[in-house]
Amino acid sequence: MTGDHPFDADTAVVGSGPRFGATISDRWSVGDAHANGGYVLSVCLRALEQVLDKPDPLAVSAFFQRRVLPGPAEVHVDIARSGRRLATGEARLLQGDQEAVRVVASFADLSRAAGPTLVSGSAPVLPPPQDCLDLFSGEVLGDSGLEAPGIAGRLEYRTPRLPGWRQGSPSGQAKAEFWLRPAGGRPADTLLLPGLVDMAVPAVFELGHYATTTIELTVHVRARPVPGWLACRVSTRYLIEGYHEEDFEIWDSTGRLVAQSRQLALLG
Amino acid sequence: MTGDHPFDADTAVVGSGPRFGATISDRWSVGDAHANGGYVLSVCLRALEQVLDKPDPLAVSAFFQRRVLPGPAEVHVDIARSGRRLATGEARLLQGDQEAVRVVASFADLSRAAGPTLVSGSAPVLPPPQDCLDLFSGEVLGDSGLEAPGIAGRLEYRTPRLPGWRQGSPSGQAKAEFWLRPAGGRPADTLLLPGLVDMAVPAVFELGHYATTTIELTVHVRARPVPGWLACRVSTRYLIEGYHEEDFEIWDSTGRLVAQSRQLALLG
Repeated sequence: MTGDHPFDADTAVVGSGPRFGATISDRWSVGDAHANGGYVLSVCLRALEQVLDKPDPLAVSAFFQRRVLPGPAEVHVDIARSGRRLATGEARLLQGDQEAVRVVASFADLSRAAGPTLVSGSAPVLPPPQDCLDLFSGEVLGDSGLEAPGIAGRLEYRTPRLPGWRQGSPSGQAKAEFWLRPAGGRPADTLLLPGLVDMAVPAVFELGHYATTTIELTVHVRARPVPGWLACRVSTRYLIEGYHEEDFEIWDSTGRLVAQSRQLALLG
Repeated sequence: MTGDHPFDADTAVVGSGPRFGATISDRWSVGDAHANGGYVLSVCLRALEQVLDKPDPLAVSAFFQRRVLPGPAEVHVDIARSGRRLATGEARLLQGDQEAVRVVASFADLSRAAGPTLVSGSAPVLPPPQDCLDLFSGEVLGDSGLEAPGIAGRLEYRTPRLPGWRQGSPSGQAKAEFWLRPAGGRPADTLLLPGLVDMAVPAVFELGHYATTTIELTVHVRARPVPGWLACRVSTRYLIEGYHEEDFEIWDSTGRLVAQSRQLALLG
């Protein structure tokens, strides 16, 4: 049973479509109390899941236009195409009659994927989670603006060492590797992965930039994860005039790549 | 004047919106005569350009649902939000009343971008174009299915050496670096870059896979290119059960990253 976990309870949509109701929870807020973008994306995917006849969000693109605040919201969906292999649809999340997020997604059945496999990258090499630091614990987060209540309470986050940014000395290298999993024992699944890529600390923290806003986020879900810890890798290579990409990979505990994402964001 | 170049002539849309007419040209066809996806994306961007009040497509995501054939098409657009910094809209390309491609894009004015810059990657190191091989010449392409007429005639393509796939011995390394520019002296601009990332030979050719279909393509335009040759880098790291990403970078002749993209595609 996953229905009682905050992820499931807080992303639930009501109605039968094409217009769903939703309630944005304050349990996924960041800093100044707007909702985390990955959480809002997850609400949109829950609505799309209702109307598309394939189980796994394979390719997801979200355009973030306005901040979303705790409180009521609507999600309007439409089906672009329902084909044999892919079902593609769109969800628009509105708050106060203003569109805040637009998501297009193609769903597939990843259990039926069959074809050649050749992987030239590899999973992050990390100490076991029990030998790592709990980055989202109160004593580590301190007054960083990420402390619980809010999204920090929703995730278990284990990092091999205290990040430079948290010691007041950003490394200058916008990359990190760490463990993530939903708090409370809920296993990750393909519906949770697209939001998860936007829930960790941004890579640009290690450049000394602590405020960045996502413009667009694309996630490709590559496989269904097995239950357990997820090894994550985040990096930013190109910060240009304030705009930067952030790449994110999630590998499950069998060493399989399960999600790959890139977002474009703007500092400040 | 760029209006007479095939890119401009063949991506033109007519009407005042929100429903535009377009004519898909056979000058951008690939192999079995469907239109190249990057070209079709460009038609959608031409329609969005008409209704959005910012000049540069900053973030673009396209979902390819059906092949597009030479002949008449419609492009239906809507504006999601027109804000101070970003204008976001959607274009749906229909052929025979069926939606074939859905594009969401945020436009900005890149000439007004101002903020920190820190680049940790670097441009491809290539011999000068005049010392490279013309990959799209008839003698090199032979009967590869990419020969002119069609998209091969629209681009100038220079590669340091004959690719393994063209010699019948794919290298097994799904990556390549090469020069590209539009044929006929048309300078590249930010409206042309998003389509260009989908016009080169797929990286998986070097794995011996010669048929792949784009599901979703995201392009982030990072700067306005100066006129001249564009240094390109393409790679695929994760081929999993037939699904693979393809990453693409375009650098202008001053060594500046001007576009970065990723697509998810499926072999066969």
